[in-house]
Amino acid sequence: MADTLYFEDFPLGEMIEYGGIHVSAADIIAFARDFDPQPFHTDEEAARASMGGLIASGWHTSALLLRMNCEAFLTRAAILEETGVEEVRWQRPVRPGDQLHVRRHTLARRPREGAANAGEVEFLYEVVNQAGEAAMIQRSGLLLKQRPQPLGN
Amino acid sequence: MADTLYFEDFPLGEMIEYGGIHVSAADIIAFARDFDPQPFHTDEEAARASMGGLIASGWHTSALLLRMNCEAFLTRAAILEETGVEEVRWQRPVRPGDQLHVRRHTLARRPREGAANAGEVEFLYEVVNQAGEAAMIQRSGLLLKQRPQPLGN
Repeated sequence: MADTLYFEDFPLGEMIEYGGIHVSAADIIAFARDFDPQPFHTDEEAARASMGGLIASGWHTSALLLRMNCEAFLTRAAILEETGVEEVRWQRPVRPGDQLHVRRHTLARRPREGAANAGEVEFLYEVVNQAGEAAMIQRSGLLLKQRPQPLGN
Repeated sequence: MADTLYFEDFPLGEMIEYGGIHVSAADIIAFARDFDPQPFHTDEEAARASMGGLIASGWHTSALLLRMNCEAFLTRAAILEETGVEEVRWQRPVRPGDQLHVRRHTLARRPREGAANAGEVEFLYEVVNQAGEAAMIQRSGLLLKQRPQPLGN
């Protein structure tokens, strides 16, 4: 499980699913108090009036995606650089009691020009709820090391 | 200060600066333990060896931008929809002791087609450190209500 993941370990067109995080009202409120103090994220009563109940900050959902990515692969990937984020869309609210997982698609991959033994991979991540609906998508990339060749090759 | 902000309150080409957040090692570690448990975000010793010291998760910097945006204007803006994020780039590490603020540029604005009394605004946010360098940029948009016209006009 602790094997390092290289550029070669992310084939074009691959789709894999992983993760599984339960979102509580307390989690939603705690994140929002620190970073997104708007009443529909921090106050159940105010949220009921405006949004039919508490909804998670979209950036909380982004942070939960990050945690699931760390647990599934990021901490053992041979990352040289996070090349950045190309797109985030929040498509459905995340509410207390939701159970989220990730669908990761490998959209593109190419050797990095001028960088020996490195390659860029572009992922589309969907954060999917218990009804199978995408609550959020994010498109972003990593620059990864290529797998070292055995000596003598 | 509590006046509602409408589409008309974000003129094209405007650049304003606001915010002011001190980032501590404890803040960096707390965020990373919850959402980005990689050793260069959570462990001072491991970070010293690999990164010359602790660096904040890029998504922590995004969350701090959100907090400064809430305090400066988001909570009083007449937001109909967050249209999403078009770009995030992490340009320099954020380290313990850094003091961050925001430079917000209004890149584009247009009435929303088919939506009476609504307009889209696209912002470029720079998260700037105490040396005046951008640690992160984010480009994203809001759909806002237009200012209500007085009756009789």
